[in-house]
Amino acid sequence: MKTLEDYIRVTPDFPKPGIVFRDISTLVADPDGMRLCVSQLAEPYRAAGIDRVAGLEARGFILGAALALELGKGFLPIRKKGKLSGPVIGESYALEYGEAEIEMNDDVLRPGERVLMVDDLLATGGTAEAGINLVERVGAKVVSCAFVVDLLDVGGRARLEGRGMEVFSLLRY
Amino acid sequence: MKTLEDYIRVTPDFPKPGIVFRDISTLVADPDGMRLCVSQLAEPYRAAGIDRVAGLEARGFILGAALALELGKGFLPIRKKGKLSGPVIGESYALEYGEAEIEMNDDVLRPGERVLMVDDLLATGGTAEAGINLVERVGAKVVSCAFVVDLLDVGGRARLEGRGMEVFSLLRY
Repeated sequence: MKTLEDYIRVTPDFPKPGIVFRDISTLVADPDGMRLCVSQLAEPYRAAGIDRVAGLEARGFILGAALALELGKGFLPIRKKGKLSGPVIGESYALEYGEAEIEMNDDVLRPGERVLMVDDLLATGGTAEAGINLVERVGAKVVSCAFVVDLLDVGGRARLEGRGMEVFSLLRY
Repeated sequence: MKTLEDYIRVTPDFPKPGIVFRDISTLVADPDGMRLCVSQLAEPYRAAGIDRVAGLEARGFILGAALALELGKGFLPIRKKGKLSGPVIGESYALEYGEAEIEMNDDVLRPGERVLMVDDLLATGGTAEAGINLVERVGAKVVSCAFVVDLLDVGGRARLEGRGMEVFSLLRY
């Protein structure tokens, strides 16, 4: 029987030299991989009183939406700048060179809502932290961040835990 | 009781003047909206012998992944150029000004597989048609295209049906 890890596509030097990329696309493309992954991601949250699942564009949409359906919650997309219609708030975060900005509609979450933040992979944690800031700015709370792949030596987990965030991941490297 | 249509956010002049944008983000952000939408999208396909669900970046990832989970199938992401790791094939399509390219891993679908293509909105049908071409190039077959919003007067439905494709949509304007 295949494990979660067996479904991950490992590509050296993607998207640039020196990076070993671990892609969940092949995991979710397999029906057993998808089912297994969503079940394992959902498990800690079935009784956690989550109100909404937020996902980070674009791979976080795949897992976040499936997880939202599995948990019977709504899915809130957090997107790259300029992609969302309606009122948005934005948050910048540092990239290796320069910066990027993500946006969230600010009329969806209600103050006090408990949000589960989802992405495919935790590396530096920069995007996740910007997402957490967006949720907090409307008075809601990210109660946990869930990832499939957790690259421990890149520092994202330490960064998020350092601000008191719970981090849950399925595969740690 | 709210209908599907009540959950859609309608924004005039987005993403540019003259376009009335109908956004499914607010639909999927609501737990009832998400559940209702996925159930209605899944209904015609429960006994249709679908092997895989393909979704077009990025809103198509939200509905496609949820639908794949609902149907017990794998989800294949079709992405903007340069985003997928592993071997890809690409297909260009025309935009109002210039062109764009989408890509698909060419080592996932097997010849003869029956694919359901999903996106949030059908306008000109250019992206969907490029996606269909990608699937056909690896010897698989798109048996149906499913959308939430179908903008009839923009011509996408006529274009896809004109090449013999089945088109299913939940909300037609």
